[in-house]
Amino acid sequence: MLDFPVENLSAEDVERLRRIYEPLTNSVRDLIDATIRTEVDGDAVAAAKAEIDSATTRLRSRQLDGSFGVRFGADGDQMPWGNVVIGMRNPVAPPLVFAPTADGGVRADFHLGAAYEGPPGHVHGGIAALILDHALGGAASAPDKPRLTGTITMRYRRMTALGALHVEAAVVRTEGVKTFAEGRLCDADGVTVEAEGVFIRPRWARD
Amino acid sequence: MLDFPVENLSAEDVERLRRIYEPLTNSVRDLIDATIRTEVDGDAVAAAKAEIDSATTRLRSRQLDGSFGVRFGADGDQMPWGNVVIGMRNPVAPPLVFAPTADGGVRADFHLGAAYEGPPGHVHGGIAALILDHALGGAASAPDKPRLTGTITMRYRRMTALGALHVEAAVVRTEGVKTFAEGRLCDADGVTVEAEGVFIRPRWARD
Repeated sequence: MLDFPVENLSAEDVERLRRIYEPLTNSVRDLIDATIRTEVDGDAVAAAKAEIDSATTRLRSRQLDGSFGVRFGADGDQMPWGNVVIGMRNPVAPPLVFAPTADGGVRADFHLGAAYEGPPGHVHGGIAALILDHALGGAASAPDKPRLTGTITMRYRRMTALGALHVEAAVVRTEGVKTFAEGRLCDADGVTVEAEGVFIRPRWARD
Repeated sequence: MLDFPVENLSAEDVERLRRIYEPLTNSVRDLIDATIRTEVDGDAVAAAKAEIDSATTRLRSRQLDGSFGVRFGADGDQMPWGNVVIGMRNPVAPPLVFAPTADGGVRADFHLGAAYEGPPGHVHGGIAALILDHALGGAASAPDKPRLTGTITMRYRRMTALGALHVEAAVVRTEGVKTFAEGRLCDADGVTVEAEGVFIRPRWARD
């Protein structure tokens, strides 16, 4: 069983929180990229580190005991803000913003830079798997009916270049608690990775 | 074809660079966690953001044009420092440190916190896939003979709790340019995800 706390937040409260935390998270995303790519000397690194540690101390002066989780506002607004793929408050998330497709699936256009590298200049194969797992799971789930990955297979056609990318996924069929979905990741030159998976409605989320 | 530059760096130079950049990267990892979990008010967030942006400006004053890639020192020291799973200079990487096993495979003990969350309190299924893809690929590759993922299948037995984790992988058999590997991810209560994959030696890395 998972915990999805409902907080006493109006839509306006949620929007106010977004305005506070989204710029912070975007700044940390920019810092991550700069940290990987910097070539400044030891003194400049030490000065940057001191500022970073000071910021961390400020932020930790009041914090959640554990991870962010998924919260719901009073109006039913879902806030999966800690999620590593779509979380507005998670600097590791690019974040992806999924849109529905005409066939009931999902799609997202996004950009991956230096932070997601595996082979030089290319997306780590496991990051392709992360993005595809989330996309297929999203296509297989309704907002009030989460489904979790049972099995998923990735087929790598070629390496995925870092840069502008596109992912899409759709349900193929549903049999009882199992939903079959498939999808693909594309870079500027076309499809790079294909995925197919079986998603299961967990016992606690069944009717 | 991939670019693996050899730089004119001695083992001492590599160690000096590690001493400069590793503490910076660890500080950014700590900041990522604090950014997700903080509950401080707007003024404190703004003050932290200003320090972060100042640090980013310092680091960007001299930087690589693109991603970090994989470099080699003059003594053959491999520096996959930008890698999203094992990269010492990539704050998104936990990072994992793999050790060889008696059967020629690889293993790593590591910790995943709030930054890798999917279902509340649990590791994102796609992060499990990222870790397993890297572990199986590592087991299938020799240092001078990289192999890339052809296909990989993940079987999710149950959700993986955030916290202390273990991954291991080994080669099952090799047939020409194809190497078959399998592995598993475990949390404190045992195996959570199993993986099996086929890894291909790229044409440019064949004898």
